[in-house]
Amino acid sequence: MSLLVVGTVAFDAIETPFGKTDKIIGGAATYISLAASYFTKKKINLVSVVGGDFPQSAMDMLKKHHVELEGLQILKDKKTFFWSGKYHNDMNTRDTLATELNVLGEFDPILPDSYQDCDFLMLGNLMPAVQMKVMDRLKNRPHLIVLDTMNFWMDIALDELKTVLKRVDVLTINDSEARQLSGEYSLVKAAAKILQMGPKYLIIKKGEHGALLFDKNQVFFAPALPLEDVFDPTGAGDSFAGGFIGYLAETKDISFENMKRAIIFGSAMASFTVEKFGVERLVDLTQKQVDERVQEFIDLVQFDIALV
Amino acid sequence: MSLLVVGTVAFDAIETPFGKTDKIIGGAATYISLAASYFTKKKINLVSVVGGDFPQSAMDMLKKHHVELEGLQILKDKKTFFWSGKYHNDMNTRDTLATELNVLGEFDPILPDSYQDCDFLMLGNLMPAVQMKVMDRLKNRPHLIVLDTMNFWMDIALDELKTVLKRVDVLTINDSEARQLSGEYSLVKAAAKILQMGPKYLIIKKGEHGALLFDKNQVFFAPALPLEDVFDPTGAGDSFAGGFIGYLAETKDISFENMKRAIIFGSAMASFTVEKFGVERLVDLTQKQVDERVQEFIDLVQFDIALV
Repeated sequence: MSLLVVGTVAFDAIETPFGKTDKIIGGAATYISLAASYFTKKKINLVSVVGGDFPQSAMDMLKKHHVELEGLQILKDKKTFFWSGKYHNDMNTRDTLATELNVLGEFDPILPDSYQDCDFLMLGNLMPAVQMKVMDRLKNRPHLIVLDTMNFWMDIALDELKTVLKRVDVLTINDSEARQLSGEYSLVKAAAKILQMGPKYLIIKKGEHGALLFDKNQVFFAPALPLEDVFDPTGAGDSFAGGFIGYLAETKDISFENMKRAIIFGSAMASFTVEKFGVERLVDLTQKQVDERVQEFIDLVQFDIALV
Repeated sequence: MSLLVVGTVAFDAIETPFGKTDKIIGGAATYISLAASYFTKKKINLVSVVGGDFPQSAMDMLKKHHVELEGLQILKDKKTFFWSGKYHNDMNTRDTLATELNVLGEFDPILPDSYQDCDFLMLGNLMPAVQMKVMDRLKNRPHLIVLDTMNFWMDIALDELKTVLKRVDVLTINDSEARQLSGEYSLVKAAAKILQMGPKYLIIKKGEHGALLFDKNQVFFAPALPLEDVFDPTGAGDSFAGGFIGYLAETKDISFENMKRAIIFGSAMASFTVEKFGVERLVDLTQKQVDERVQEFIDLVQFDIALV
């Protein structure tokens, strides 16, 4: 059995108050796969598309993290998806400076036969129509389908997104997207409405303010780690999703209790990602570093009250 | 031994998206005392000032919560401090519509002799000079001094505030005030700077995003309870402080571990306060309701990860 990850593999150029990069490796599926690789020994089957300009070294780096690239289409005569953005001083808002779809414009997600044993599916942020195609092309429904999306698709493809939502188990979006999708300001009310749209679980990501997990009856809150500096927030949400699905895929336990743990592992991965530009921090973590970071989360929220 | 609470006892008129009140009972010391009363059986000695217009029924309500009013000055020919404000739709920002200092303009905090046995002191938000006078007038330094303040005093009385800070154990402020006081955007860096100004502990209140407790070596995070509706945020921070100091005063344990518990109890009281206008929700809670609310906090953040 395997974990299937679908999403962008891209070039990013990022500017933050701390500095500026040229084109570096980015993309939702890149962050998701790397983060997941620290938690699951399963094969991580990637479906994405890049251009002839995408470097072999980046593909080698992914392979080192047991990411299978048979489903990575390489369109030799075209260019890789490129995004460029500039973060404001508060790091919570950013301006998009450039978006060049390139290969992504006509992306048809082809699933190699060897990917059909997928039991966990992570649909990274992409056109809802592409996310739908992936689900259509799997012969057996995976044990768990997690979907990430963003406000952009709510703006231009809301009907398609709603159709996709009916078929997934877990939706991850941020707080303003939850408000947009539900029309409710209160996140508790927003969650109740969104859980009627299809997903059995909803994760609302609140950036530096942590994340909430809802099902119909319960809510769990995971904090973000208070950091001296957030160096580059790019990929934090995808790293979160990667740690989350990686842990679930490995343990095969999709109970609410186990999802709590998965969210803490996801939060730990996000806290690493923001410490450096791009995937720099994610490429060579040790198990010890991951464990120590998770322990910081435990220490951060653990308290001991015995009610009589 | 007793808990000494200093702060405003006031009239508020509040407008929120949910409704509007005439003059109702408010004031930092009112919320603090009421919230504390659920956690400590000690006498809660109040120091404040009101005008001849302050109703006997409100004083009776405080007495029912074992609040001692010997230190509540009643200036018969003057009027009680009045504040009026209107909350915006997001409930995180508000406009002050009126501030009438009235009796507060010349407030001299007189401590009855019977108050000198104070071992826990809560200095609610007030002019730093008044907070200083209270400390000067206590013959013995209390076991723990907690101070609340606000951006207004940072704007107009920063030097006095800094002098006061040197003498307190715990400072409670919100996130934007922590940034203003320290000149640091990162709350981790802000905390490090503020802990050099005097307090051994710093609590940064983040409203709906919870609260952080810092000492020089550790950090603890307590979430806010996700609520369907925040009806009226007035007094949430004071109720938080009241639950916090009430629990500490009763247990007499001022270790970091016990402060974590105290913060959870404080957060529980804040979550009650915002459910109705003014002190309405705080006046007749049962122990069972408080316990159930605390259990909701435990359920909200509790997870079980065993690192090898």
